[in-house]
Amino acid sequence: MAAELTAHDLIAKHRPTLDQALEAIRTRAYWSPHPEHPKAYGENGSLDMAAGKAAFDALLGSRLDLGQPGTDDWVGGEVSPYGVELGVSYPHADLDELLPAMKAGQRAWRDAGAETRALVCLEILKRISDRTHEFAHAVMHTSGQAFMMAFQAGGPHAQDRGLEAVAYAYVEQVRTPDTAEWTKPQGKRDPLALTKRFTPVPRGIAMVVGCNTFPTWNGYPGLFASLATGNAVLVKPHPRAVLPLALTVQVARQVLTESGFDPNLVTLAAERPGEGIAKTLATRPEIRIIDYTGSTTFGDWLETNARQAQVYTEKAGVNSVLVHSTDDYKGMLSNLAFSLSLYSGQMCTTPQNLLVPRDGIRTEEGPRSYDEVVADLARAVDGLLGDDARANALLGAIVNPDVKARLEAASGLGEVALASREVANPEFPEAVVRTPVIVKLDGAKPDDEAAYMSECFGPVSFAVAVDSAADAVELLSRTIREKGAMTVGAYTTDEEVEQAVQEVCLEEAAQLSLNLTGGVYVNQTAAFSDFHGSGGNPAANSALTDGAFVANRFRVVEVRREA
Amino acid sequence: MAAELTAHDLIAKHRPTLDQALEAIRTRAYWSPHPEHPKAYGENGSLDMAAGKAAFDALLGSRLDLGQPGTDDWVGGEVSPYGVELGVSYPHADLDELLPAMKAGQRAWRDAGAETRALVCLEILKRISDRTHEFAHAVMHTSGQAFMMAFQAGGPHAQDRGLEAVAYAYVEQVRTPDTAEWTKPQGKRDPLALTKRFTPVPRGIAMVVGCNTFPTWNGYPGLFASLATGNAVLVKPHPRAVLPLALTVQVARQVLTESGFDPNLVTLAAERPGEGIAKTLATRPEIRIIDYTGSTTFGDWLETNARQAQVYTEKAGVNSVLVHSTDDYKGMLSNLAFSLSLYSGQMCTTPQNLLVPRDGIRTEEGPRSYDEVVADLARAVDGLLGDDARANALLGAIVNPDVKARLEAASGLGEVALASREVANPEFPEAVVRTPVIVKLDGAKPDDEAAYMSECFGPVSFAVAVDSAADAVELLSRTIREKGAMTVGAYTTDEEVEQAVQEVCLEEAAQLSLNLTGGVYVNQTAAFSDFHGSGGNPAANSALTDGAFVANRFRVVEVRREA
Repeated sequence: MAAELTAHDLIAKHRPTLDQALEAIRTRAYWSPHPEHPKAYGENGSLDMAAGKAAFDALLGSRLDLGQPGTDDWVGGEVSPYGVELGVSYPHADLDELLPAMKAGQRAWRDAGAETRALVCLEILKRISDRTHEFAHAVMHTSGQAFMMAFQAGGPHAQDRGLEAVAYAYVEQVRTPDTAEWTKPQGKRDPLALTKRFTPVPRGIAMVVGCNTFPTWNGYPGLFASLATGNAVLVKPHPRAVLPLALTVQVARQVLTESGFDPNLVTLAAERPGEGIAKTLATRPEIRIIDYTGSTTFGDWLETNARQAQVYTEKAGVNSVLVHSTDDYKGMLSNLAFSLSLYSGQMCTTPQNLLVPRDGIRTEEGPRSYDEVVADLARAVDGLLGDDARANALLGAIVNPDVKARLEAASGLGEVALASREVANPEFPEAVVRTPVIVKLDGAKPDDEAAYMSECFGPVSFAVAVDSAADAVELLSRTIREKGAMTVGAYTTDEEVEQAVQEVCLEEAAQLSLNLTGGVYVNQTAAFSDFHGSGGNPAANSALTDGAFVANRFRVVEVRREA
Repeated sequence: MAAELTAHDLIAKHRPTLDQALEAIRTRAYWSPHPEHPKAYGENGSLDMAAGKAAFDALLGSRLDLGQPGTDDWVGGEVSPYGVELGVSYPHADLDELLPAMKAGQRAWRDAGAETRALVCLEILKRISDRTHEFAHAVMHTSGQAFMMAFQAGGPHAQDRGLEAVAYAYVEQVRTPDTAEWTKPQGKRDPLALTKRFTPVPRGIAMVVGCNTFPTWNGYPGLFASLATGNAVLVKPHPRAVLPLALTVQVARQVLTESGFDPNLVTLAAERPGEGIAKTLATRPEIRIIDYTGSTTFGDWLETNARQAQVYTEKAGVNSVLVHSTDDYKGMLSNLAFSLSLYSGQMCTTPQNLLVPRDGIRTEEGPRSYDEVVADLARAVDGLLGDDARANALLGAIVNPDVKARLEAASGLGEVALASREVANPEFPEAVVRTPVIVKLDGAKPDDEAAYMSECFGPVSFAVAVDSAADAVELLSRTIREKGAMTVGAYTTDEEVEQAVQEVCLEEAAQLSLNLTGGVYVNQTAAFSDFHGSGGNPAANSALTDGAFVANRFRVVEVRREA
């Protein structure tokens, strides 16, 4: 097949973007080439709001034929958390046919070199970006995110994370030059002289195990890091969130074909209900890299058993916010209320434990007791979510029955400071929409410890009464060390407490947001600037995205000969 | 304690060297700041030959008191492969005292930052370099290397590898800036603005498990990579090769003290015979990084069981040289003869399997049959080692009884093309010195396969008769894939065969030396230019030194707040 997208085209089109991304990861200043505003789309080939919705609607009830080899069945069955049956069916693969087929194109992909691979990845991301409106609906109706969040987090922010991974992968590969002339003086004798050629080579086939809540945002870093370093990539989506990743695979296969590469470098492994193919795939010798987001149980299993692979995991954690003192009490409350509410707390970065001294806190309005702080926070959440339309736009839908069950059980764990309420969604009456619950617990009570020292994923927060700032810092330290944390927040005007919290975060390797009272929230990170997790505590063994996330996805082979 | 070595001193003294190292790993051209010639030492504070020997002699029979906390006994008992009882005793540690003491200084070491850490490491290396003559004897009388090799490989080459690791560690840490101002436009509203601070933080305590044959060369990369990234380092030497690493620890502790840091950031864990403390230490929660060189059995055990740690291993492998055709037959034979003889083949990079077509090879002197090639190579080895003085200088001594036993057993594996002979060493009559054995095996005989598909560490090579170049390439591929390889060599004037060998090395991730006939040998690699292993086949899971070798020894913690 003739390549329609030449290397020359790709350089002209995408090299400036790659260079900007390389500069952004170096300065870590704000940058993104992917617009966040829905109205920014509709020109230069991108789908506008209506076209995106129409494209999504056309997918419903269809068979998404990716043209993959070894397709032996069609599977599907996603039901949107908003109640819609998607009815899309996907190819089910005979792995003994699919995996060998994925290896066929690896040599040409390897020989293309780091720059071409990066630019092909950027073309894939550009085409995904053009279809952001369509992807937004796909993310919304698999994750349960509200439309605007599905649009932003599932669209531009996910694309940013993919591009960031490509930039890191590219720069890591070109740290070693293609060739070197090595000449070693030998005194009066002739020097020793060698010509050396260095080639980045892939590990093999990489598997991305997608998650239910952020199929694109959590899936793109691993997918693009592996592909850009020369690996073929098998995408194994969460059975409830196949569509966004299936569309991603579709786009990748089109671009690979048009640029003259084998489309089987990127494939989808959809599965039958209960088939559990991630476990089967994880120990196959062809699978040399695994990216996983999900439960600690399966993440630990992968780390222990997939010994032939490099395994990158993001697992469960318990995120804490230490509430000690503030000079902007209202700002603190509204910032926290938003953090607890966004996507019904179904983010790996949502705070769970609010550590509040039982003697209360200092504010610019004077002291507030523990009970007052918790009541004021409950009021702030109530105020934020009082209007049903706004509540729906912030909360989205409960992603699955497990989350709902945990939410319902949470009110039995202690005194309920804020009860969860049902919110009606007139557009999608079947959606399960619930406001967060806040439960009071006592940090000194062994009975309460079981609750606050476990991840309770969903719209559940614990206001944990602690004896003092020092006690809070100690509990924070223990929580990160034993349970892991993707995020830590702290509110304090006291230099000593700030130092103590920082020291704990440095010691236990957790990312800290201090005194956020405005429009940035502890649960949000920005690509090119913020790391997502640290890779240094039990919540995750890698950070999105840094050198360590990409450097072991390839190896450098040297061929040397006398000059 | 007052710091005698200020940061200012260190920058003036070592920053230019660090900058040159950074440039060298980028261009991979020849560079080294450590002289290879013994006569280059003796000025500017470095020990000359006589002073180095005197310093070593003074160590014999002494107690090397490192001033470590938790010392509960004194252990030792090294006997040189040259017959000398070293009689040096070392501190034995109560780990429950030593490990906590190692953590005490970590915060100050972390807070010192990447540049200061790198420069302190360079000062350690400089002082080791000044004592190269003393270290040479220590390496010689533990590894059995001949003096000149112990001097070069144990001295400047090891120091180069340490410096290379420091350079990689430094540049990896400064990829992320210390601070960033992040300002995100919000249309007509005020932009969101955050100030972010990024700090590289160590994993914890790193353990270096030293090997018998190259205590410094194989120990320094991990030691310096971990120390430069902020970790404390516990050095667990091989019981037969304690002295070179104990001296290294001594120097490191002196430099740390003089530069105002806690000496307990670097400690020694010597052990009683049969104590096996590496296994105990490997699963202790404090140990977060392990560098290991040694048997596949224990390397695999570490990878499987030391789950709390990043584990970097170099294990066994089977190195092959494909002999297909040459336009410099004599050069090829003498190059191969040297490679097989150097340090009695006791290098992880020594070729073991010589794959020779049973129909013979083409040379510029006409065709040579399989038997002729093997006989000519045997003659070349004989010629190289015919003179006892030269043989002693090249071979060194057999490092331990296991190697001697394997050598003796090898002649029973097939037809002996070159028998091993005993070489007398007049200076050290007790040294076991043996020339290499070459055994003929048939690649098509299942009985022979067990021999050539296992590592036979020591002065043993197999001339494996293969059916054709294609058969050799296929066997090469299978050997790397199943057994691993630190090095691959090939001699061919045929473009197609060269391409096929290259493709196998790219596919299986092995480092290839092509048509070496001069003064560079397949078993030698140069720091700053050659990678040692690829980290992509079973012989090793990491390469000395690249980004992946350093990037996961630390994590970056971000603290962000509103600007």
